[in-house]
Amino acid sequence: MSQSGATRIVVVGGSAAGPKAAAKARRMDQHAQITIIQRSPDLSMASCGYPYYVGGFFDDRNQLLCTPTGVVRDPKFFLNAKGIDALTETEVVAIDRAGKVLKCRDLKEGREFEVGYDKLVLATGANPIMPPVPGIELDGVTTLQSMRDADFLRKIRDEREIERAVVVGGGLIGVETCEALELAGIQMTVVEMLPQILMFLDWELAKLVENHMREKGSHIVTENPVAAFLGENGKLTGVKLRNGTELPCQLAVVATGVRPNSKLAAEAGLEVGKTGGIVVDEYMQTSDADIYAAGDCIEVPQLLTGQKVHAPFGDLANIEGRVVGINITTGNHAKFPGTYQTGVCKVFDYTAGSTGLSESAAQRAGFETITALTAAPDKPGFMGAKTLIMKMVSDRKTGRLLGLQCVGPGDVSKRIASAAMALQGGLTIDDLCVADLPYAPPFSPAVDNLIATAHVLENKMTGRMRGISAREVRAKVDAGETPYILDVRDPVEYEQMRLGIGEVLIPLGAIRKRMDELPQDKHREIICYCKISLRGYEVASLLEAHGWTDVKVMEGGILAWPFARER
Amino acid sequence: MSQSGATRIVVVGGSAAGPKAAAKARRMDQHAQITIIQRSPDLSMASCGYPYYVGGFFDDRNQLLCTPTGVVRDPKFFLNAKGIDALTETEVVAIDRAGKVLKCRDLKEGREFEVGYDKLVLATGANPIMPPVPGIELDGVTTLQSMRDADFLRKIRDEREIERAVVVGGGLIGVETCEALELAGIQMTVVEMLPQILMFLDWELAKLVENHMREKGSHIVTENPVAAFLGENGKLTGVKLRNGTELPCQLAVVATGVRPNSKLAAEAGLEVGKTGGIVVDEYMQTSDADIYAAGDCIEVPQLLTGQKVHAPFGDLANIEGRVVGINITTGNHAKFPGTYQTGVCKVFDYTAGSTGLSESAAQRAGFETITALTAAPDKPGFMGAKTLIMKMVSDRKTGRLLGLQCVGPGDVSKRIASAAMALQGGLTIDDLCVADLPYAPPFSPAVDNLIATAHVLENKMTGRMRGISAREVRAKVDAGETPYILDVRDPVEYEQMRLGIGEVLIPLGAIRKRMDELPQDKHREIICYCKISLRGYEVASLLEAHGWTDVKVMEGGILAWPFARER
Repeated sequence: MSQSGATRIVVVGGSAAGPKAAAKARRMDQHAQITIIQRSPDLSMASCGYPYYVGGFFDDRNQLLCTPTGVVRDPKFFLNAKGIDALTETEVVAIDRAGKVLKCRDLKEGREFEVGYDKLVLATGANPIMPPVPGIELDGVTTLQSMRDADFLRKIRDEREIERAVVVGGGLIGVETCEALELAGIQMTVVEMLPQILMFLDWELAKLVENHMREKGSHIVTENPVAAFLGENGKLTGVKLRNGTELPCQLAVVATGVRPNSKLAAEAGLEVGKTGGIVVDEYMQTSDADIYAAGDCIEVPQLLTGQKVHAPFGDLANIEGRVVGINITTGNHAKFPGTYQTGVCKVFDYTAGSTGLSESAAQRAGFETITALTAAPDKPGFMGAKTLIMKMVSDRKTGRLLGLQCVGPGDVSKRIASAAMALQGGLTIDDLCVADLPYAPPFSPAVDNLIATAHVLENKMTGRMRGISAREVRAKVDAGETPYILDVRDPVEYEQMRLGIGEVLIPLGAIRKRMDELPQDKHREIICYCKISLRGYEVASLLEAHGWTDVKVMEGGILAWPFARER
Repeated sequence: MSQSGATRIVVVGGSAAGPKAAAKARRMDQHAQITIIQRSPDLSMASCGYPYYVGGFFDDRNQLLCTPTGVVRDPKFFLNAKGIDALTETEVVAIDRAGKVLKCRDLKEGREFEVGYDKLVLATGANPIMPPVPGIELDGVTTLQSMRDADFLRKIRDEREIERAVVVGGGLIGVETCEALELAGIQMTVVEMLPQILMFLDWELAKLVENHMREKGSHIVTENPVAAFLGENGKLTGVKLRNGTELPCQLAVVATGVRPNSKLAAEAGLEVGKTGGIVVDEYMQTSDADIYAAGDCIEVPQLLTGQKVHAPFGDLANIEGRVVGINITTGNHAKFPGTYQTGVCKVFDYTAGSTGLSESAAQRAGFETITALTAAPDKPGFMGAKTLIMKMVSDRKTGRLLGLQCVGPGDVSKRIASAAMALQGGLTIDDLCVADLPYAPPFSPAVDNLIATAHVLENKMTGRMRGISAREVRAKVDAGETPYILDVRDPVEYEQMRLGIGEVLIPLGAIRKRMDELPQDKHREIICYCKISLRGYEVASLLEAHGWTDVKVMEGGILAWPFARER
């Protein structure tokens, strides 16, 4: 306790979780003595906004640091508006848990000093993972993790001198950075060591996003890690890939993920998990009852698998910070149960989002999955519909929703938000089939994409429809198999766009009269599709009723075909 | 059974539920003999799109009747693509349940004939309620319930001859029609007999929508029903209200709601409920096991109250139709449990939506409610945020979410969709406090409005915050009470916009130094607010900690103030 008898609360870290915990603690306890210690010069940075500042969506960097009414969240603001002391450019060097004292260093003056605490909050964030390859120290290799990085990249954008840049890593930050710099007129290449970008998506959806990025002018290289950064006179001149390719560039942004910054906690003997994150219980309490932690430095349960994961999301940091703020002032009342790893990002004119488990993640976690993939307009055509490609993953045994992924130019975020709520409610596919979502033509089709996808999945679960993915069809054709591939669209549509993989065109409207053109062998594999495979499903039902035994629907139709087309 | 042994399925009604039931039945049973009987000339009309056609959002009326690939859903389409016979301009006059025969009349030729059925589906829709006032037969009085109505109003829009029009009824259709015609340059007045428009909203949110409509040029009259339609030579010249006001106009659109069209069912002895809707069980089966019903002609359970309601929503019609299509072909496998009465509508630059129960509806249903109202930007300011005003209703006893209403220029539909899912999952406010929604700056603030509102509600539930509504504050001031009203915004904000109800300005940032200016009487009622009342809450917490005992926060702040302001 302080001399006045007030509780001394010290928060280490001033980005998202830290200030939230401090502010909530203040509202809960107006007499506590609250201090935030922050290494960087800035506080409460909207770090998820960095790519949009770099990309020129807005010009005033202070908007990243402001309250909604335009007040910069600096130490003066924290003192006057919140009654919180904020020490910036100050590092906590060590925690003396026995003495309940922090050893601190003033980074401007080098002075060392101590700060005592009754309750300590660790919100030390995460550090970028830097690949251990030669040349990473070259001038021109950066990250986008701090205000300083954002200022540096924004300057590059404004100066318009750099022609080519490489983003190393095709995750959320990598993709957002690619867009920001491509919009600045820089020829961008994203280099990803894995077979796809955006690993929260299954392969076939990630490929659709890659295709869109290519349409927008960016290059995407997958399954090819960076072997070295090349330079002259200490300056970056290119990136060399493992396969020998050299990509000339003057700028490289490393975005290969982040790792929990749990060093201070570990050195103080606090428990740290396999993910590298500080271990906390549902009250956000560490293995020391007087120390709580929140944000990117901790690990939390994945609510579908029960496994601990590192979930460095800005929204969770705030929610966790609030839980800490309550619990350090009133005892453990608030709980943070964990995450569905819900995320979304803008990728040029597309949005890509996911909640829960992808098919591959669900299978890794041991679930027996069944999925449906649809492509459909996100509202009636007359209201200016945009396409959504959606994949729903369910637990075959229980019928429970396990995850939803969605990409495309349409309103992705609404569907991901809805699905995140459905996960939290433990809803099944049957539940989603009769969901009562808001409908009006400016906002959605009469049967929302989420419900329509549940309908398809229910059709598959009950054996009414057998699906096949575009990837499986492509593999069959490449392997020399000869399924009977049936495009059931209209001739006009066929002239405009077609796969060219040996398909036969018989429009849905003509199929009942032209059944004699279909394979005589009723056991021949038949693969039906249309633009989105709704008509494909109708034809498949018809063929099965007429005795064909191996009829499949290519899910998502042409719109979800991620490969090159004949036309 | 038909002569071929195929099941004879007959569907009465060809708008939404009927065609959906027929199409699903076809996919389930390719051998059934399926017939749709439709009174109007059109089939599968996107009737929710009528206001947008009238308003000129698109020009081709066929878009209201087309598949996503542009094929008009006429009898030829139904025959060729679906194998369904569709008889248009045909009326079903009576059901002979014993003989399983429908008596029909061809409306073009007057010919009467019979159609036998094995399974019958009633999807007879709803009829507009026409107020029993003089002059309703005048030329110029119409509804917006049919393609013919839509064509009529669109012609009026295109001709640009009418100067003034009145919409009778401020429900969804009334409001959408007002917008459509106002955009066509017609001076619009909405006349509502109740104290507010959009009865799915609580009063204070409806008033914000009314204010927006007035800003857009429309007049809104409440608590004043139409007494008579006035005319000369059979043509409408004005509308007379109960208070004597006469509104000159050349057009009046009656939109005072719809009533289930259950006449055919009732005459056949099927059970009809208090709402006037056909009674069905969760399989959509009527009191006759061979007759199912779906869409606007039935009543369904309100899932929070258990009461039967009439829920004429286009999305539910489709979902119910699908359930019927499954059950009439395979036996009762699919269930439709009921509705949360989720709805949304566009109102000029605002969206207004609701799911579950409003506060007044929840109280009528016997719940002890606790609510929170917030106003907040729907994403970070630097990404072009728009405001959302949101009201969350909870069951005080269980903490369960009962409903969410939301209005404003921001992304309402996402929040309503999310809340609808939360209702379906039976989530509590505590659950919503830690929801894992998708966050990225283009789509939402770091703490989504839905979560932030749950936080406020949790603060109220735990006694941390005492709220007061703008309406209550207004009433206190009007009644001559003198609470100490404290605006805690900055002086710049105060100069731009202020209530002028006797408030004192002390900015949050100065409050800790100016506590001596506050009332000496620690029991004096103090009402705090700011732009959105987040700072208001901070100050309230501070004052309570310093001994004031009756401190309240005006929820939603100035942004949710529905009355006139001084500035």
